[in-house]
Amino acid sequence: MNSLLPTTINHLRPLDQDAMTAARLRQQQLTKPHGALGRLETLSIQLAGITGAARPHLKNPAVVVMAADHGIARQGVSAYPAEVTPQMVYNFLAGGAAINVLARHVGARVVVVDVGVAVDLPATPGLLQRKIALGTNDMTVEPAMSRAQAQTAIATGIAVVTELIEDGVDVIATGEMGIGNTTAASAIVAALTGAPVAEVTGRGTGIDDTGLAHKIALIEQALARQRPDPTDALDVLAKVGGFEIGGLVGVMLGAAARQVPVVVDGFISGAAALLACRLAPALQPYLIAAHRSVERGHQAIFAQLDLEPLLDLGMRLGEGTGAVLGISLAQAACKILNEMATFAEAGVASNQ
Amino acid sequence: MNSLLPTTINHLRPLDQDAMTAARLRQQQLTKPHGALGRLETLSIQLAGITGAARPHLKNPAVVVMAADHGIARQGVSAYPAEVTPQMVYNFLAGGAAINVLARHVGARVVVVDVGVAVDLPATPGLLQRKIALGTNDMTVEPAMSRAQAQTAIATGIAVVTELIEDGVDVIATGEMGIGNTTAASAIVAALTGAPVAEVTGRGTGIDDTGLAHKIALIEQALARQRPDPTDALDVLAKVGGFEIGGLVGVMLGAAARQVPVVVDGFISGAAALLACRLAPALQPYLIAAHRSVERGHQAIFAQLDLEPLLDLGMRLGEGTGAVLGISLAQAACKILNEMATFAEAGVASNQ
Repeated sequence: MNSLLPTTINHLRPLDQDAMTAARLRQQQLTKPHGALGRLETLSIQLAGITGAARPHLKNPAVVVMAADHGIARQGVSAYPAEVTPQMVYNFLAGGAAINVLARHVGARVVVVDVGVAVDLPATPGLLQRKIALGTNDMTVEPAMSRAQAQTAIATGIAVVTELIEDGVDVIATGEMGIGNTTAASAIVAALTGAPVAEVTGRGTGIDDTGLAHKIALIEQALARQRPDPTDALDVLAKVGGFEIGGLVGVMLGAAARQVPVVVDGFISGAAALLACRLAPALQPYLIAAHRSVERGHQAIFAQLDLEPLLDLGMRLGEGTGAVLGISLAQAACKILNEMATFAEAGVASNQ
Repeated sequence: MNSLLPTTINHLRPLDQDAMTAARLRQQQLTKPHGALGRLETLSIQLAGITGAARPHLKNPAVVVMAADHGIARQGVSAYPAEVTPQMVYNFLAGGAAINVLARHVGARVVVVDVGVAVDLPATPGLLQRKIALGTNDMTVEPAMSRAQAQTAIATGIAVVTELIEDGVDVIATGEMGIGNTTAASAIVAALTGAPVAEVTGRGTGIDDTGLAHKIALIEQALARQRPDPTDALDVLAKVGGFEIGGLVGVMLGAAARQVPVVVDGFISGAAALLACRLAPALQPYLIAAHRSVERGHQAIFAQLDLEPLLDLGMRLGEGTGAVLGISLAQAACKILNEMATFAEAGVASNQ
């Protein structure tokens, strides 16, 4: 299991320049002014580079929703109690959550993975049981997890996404559920970037000013106590992370290693992306940032990773809700490349 | 025909407050933190108000692409020659243009209307022949059209959209094609807002600095010569507008009069929206701005109409390409309201 991470990282290749050149050339021949479709054009070229196909198709999307609990939730960092994590997992499995609705809208499969929910969940159709522990430890007291557990979380994500890709999935959206996980994500971002905690910590599900001050103080306390090594992403994940965040690190690396594009959701998925890119900088070009979350720490992630989100809709729900909307845009970008007529085909006069 | 415009304007009602209240209440009961879906939530409430349904459905979208030519195109205001207008109409009818691809992606019907293409187009399946004239006059020399033609253009749009709605269409996207029409749109925006021409004029299909200076000078010349009355939108449309722009004014008014939401595309559609709201300020709440165009004058339109676009993807193609992407988001917003489980239904603990 422990060899899966280095093996996966070794499989990461630079984007396919030939496919990108061919896609770029084709965009210039399509019946529209050069560049007039903006981000849809650059996205189509990126997708050509990721997949190695000059005319890529994204026909079988899936959103992986990793669920886990957080020991620090006992200290009241969220507007919701920790039991909402398993309740929402059941909601995902019943098809009634926002991610289900939006995934159906764009035709994406929802894959729910228990990597660390704090209660035992019965075997249920659609639920992948990959529990590593019954939630993390409270990081203000002890490391959230052991280094071995952090490695297992990543390996779990790699294994889950690899199976999906072998089953035909050709584009992955990341999602998560875990009461308390904006706290872990803020701690990760502060640890990796050196930014003051207050600058990368927001209201999560909707805490008030007092709650926010409490949350910031707890993260500062955890960082002071655990002293995660900013040059060692595994250490950061283990000391202040979460199982679902580690799982998503694996999902991203595993997808990219198979030349499958990854549409990254909001702040928590972004923290996972930051960890994953520290483990393997070659991952960055495989990532598509779906949307800009209201959660303020998201900006620091975009700046660090040099990513520009596709959407800015004032969302802050997680679950992968922004990411599946991003999948629809990625599909649109591919279809432009595949289905539009060229100037020659349509008999339209080209730009002089 | 001339009574159609006042009759249509008389049918505009304020949004249905009861439906909006019911939608707002339901959003608070759905299994997510209050407001966590951002614009999707506010959009769903607006759509409830427009349609008068607490749980609106948008199942039968159409994009109306109005095509016409511009006399001023003979002066070289575009990177493309005027014959591209009919060539692109054929491309639309053959299904090979960007609007066809993106409309198929979101499941919208493409309705192509010739309101003033400068050559005769043979009857073709899918083409609505509503030609008012073989293009507008050159506005630097004479008014683009007569006041009667301006009224006919608007009435044509009302008639086209009314037929579509009677045929079951329940959400409308606006689109257009017409070489030279960013020039007309900039003239309209300058005339109606009083903004300096240079501030609301951009590169259209992609002209260079010299071309842009030439375009600005021509618009200034046309405005100085025609002196459109900024308090009389019909006068502005007649003197410096276009047939497709007038047609879209009618599409917007006709849809709103039937409680059908209008997803407004980019800069040219925006100029039509500005004209339409001057004719009938009650139209404004029925409009959904799809995207922010690269064309710089678009900002002035948003400011005047107090609209905030859903997307910002660096697009500048027109045709309705941004608007159909907006339709997909509007549908997603409705599905959230219709398909998500409430806290009670899902057995999820609500916010304390």
